[in-house]
Amino acid sequence: MPADAARLQPARVFEVGPRDGLQNERVLVPVEHKLELVERLVAAGLHDIEIGSFVHPKWVPQMADTEQLARRIPRRPGVRYWALVPNYKGYERAVRAGIDHIGVVLSASETHNRNNLNRSREQSLEQIARVARSAVDRGHTWRGYISTAFGCPFEGAIAPEQVIEIADRLRALDAAEISFGDTIGVATPRQVAALCRRLIERFGARRIAMHLHDTRGLGLVNAYAALECGVRIIDSSVAGLGGCPYAPGAAGNIGTEDLVNLLTGSGFDAGIEIERVVDTSRWLRDRVGVTPSSKYFRYASARCSA
Amino acid sequence: MPADAARLQPARVFEVGPRDGLQNERVLVPVEHKLELVERLVAAGLHDIEIGSFVHPKWVPQMADTEQLARRIPRRPGVRYWALVPNYKGYERAVRAGIDHIGVVLSASETHNRNNLNRSREQSLEQIARVARSAVDRGHTWRGYISTAFGCPFEGAIAPEQVIEIADRLRALDAAEISFGDTIGVATPRQVAALCRRLIERFGARRIAMHLHDTRGLGLVNAYAALECGVRIIDSSVAGLGGCPYAPGAAGNIGTEDLVNLLTGSGFDAGIEIERVVDTSRWLRDRVGVTPSSKYFRYASARCSA
Repeated sequence: MPADAARLQPARVFEVGPRDGLQNERVLVPVEHKLELVERLVAAGLHDIEIGSFVHPKWVPQMADTEQLARRIPRRPGVRYWALVPNYKGYERAVRAGIDHIGVVLSASETHNRNNLNRSREQSLEQIARVARSAVDRGHTWRGYISTAFGCPFEGAIAPEQVIEIADRLRALDAAEISFGDTIGVATPRQVAALCRRLIERFGARRIAMHLHDTRGLGLVNAYAALECGVRIIDSSVAGLGGCPYAPGAAGNIGTEDLVNLLTGSGFDAGIEIERVVDTSRWLRDRVGVTPSSKYFRYASARCSA
Repeated sequence: MPADAARLQPARVFEVGPRDGLQNERVLVPVEHKLELVERLVAAGLHDIEIGSFVHPKWVPQMADTEQLARRIPRRPGVRYWALVPNYKGYERAVRAGIDHIGVVLSASETHNRNNLNRSREQSLEQIARVARSAVDRGHTWRGYISTAFGCPFEGAIAPEQVIEIADRLRALDAAEISFGDTIGVATPRQVAALCRRLIERFGARRIAMHLHDTRGLGLVNAYAALECGVRIIDSSVAGLGGCPYAPGAAGNIGTEDLVNLLTGSGFDAGIEIERVVDTSRWLRDRVGVTPSSKYFRYASARCSA
């Protein structure tokens, strides 16, 4: 424990590796490996883990075993397993598999929403409202993802007002938290700071999460800019899983080990053992066959083999 | 030009690729390639370029051609070519080769100074004083590097007081600027912010440069933390040259393209065309045979070949 541990502030790391990470990896990962992955993440201190999504297997074969995974994962006190659901039917499946922490998604950009989810944002909000009402009734917790919150591959830059308008709709439906996604990794620290300040003022820090991709190398800087503004929940992916499937080693989500290293170095404590995260990334590389893109992993590996 | 260009603040990028970068690469780069490299950097908008060092070729074979390089580089208005000198003899050689911007180096850590420079810090300061007095007399500009300003491989953490004490000595000798080096890449944003605030208060922003290595992946975050504190000069290396020579692709200096991308995204303008820096990194990879480690280059390359 560092000498100034008493001055460290709490922060939460939301692990999306088993879902957003593996979904974008080329390797099809068997459910036994996913089980071990989640177990390793829990052992490292991760307490929020998105294990998969209840989409139709035809669309995302990587997620076809989410139901099986959800049923088999041993529950532990204080550990929350999340799953993404595309609609009410997916929500029902998730609940039947024992999931009570639910993610839903829509885009800030209308064009991206139509291209990615095959419906309008209003249609997405109708589906989300149905899931949300049922979840709140049954005492489940739900989180809304707003994709393309900083930029869209079709529409370009996205105005903060547009993002806030959708966030308002999700909050009106009692979203426990909202995760703002830099889906294509175009956000800048300046843009992140400007949006985060407005979001925290409007919704309070405990409702705001950042979901940053490291596409252009600014993922960690953007995380730091968000922390500086008061954001205390950040999504990340063990090993930085989720890079472009056609470019091994290309950056996807910010890596969990990189985020933990950043948090410690910025005066935060998320209760995570970085060395166990690194071990998990090594296991992912050696046993599961994915290519870690996280920088801290590269450092730790070079050190070990030197 | 972005819409809000008028609000961009000026910042200076100090290019160390031809010196700190190439010095740590495995490939021995011929002088013709170095000449082309410097020309390309100038064309990209880099105005401070450290081209090499006047150390004995026995110690650093990569730098054996610095004299030849210095003589052959075409001078251009507004472009400053710097060279590192280890002692007065090196300074004299530099001056004879037409260099009038001089770098000198010592470590914050006594053990590192002895291991790296083979003398005590006091002995280093004596050499530096001799160079400094002569440089100031002749109207040359000199910059002091303080290595291991954030941590030492032998002594561990370095107290800010220790760094400031040495900086005081360099300022008393009329250093135009002082570059604080995170030689082994252990600095944290918290530590950078704490030191930078004190340095700016003491010496003023125009005297302070940060020289950050990306060993553990926090190089860019540390640069951002320094900028947030008011630092306006940051060292970087095209392509991120200067990684560990035994681990190709491992991170060395922060990459110039990454720094430029960060600056633009943080509200700064250094007058550098990022695409020309990327082109230079591509040329370094394809023609010179080094492995770029900069993140923005990886992004730009993946995009081009997709």
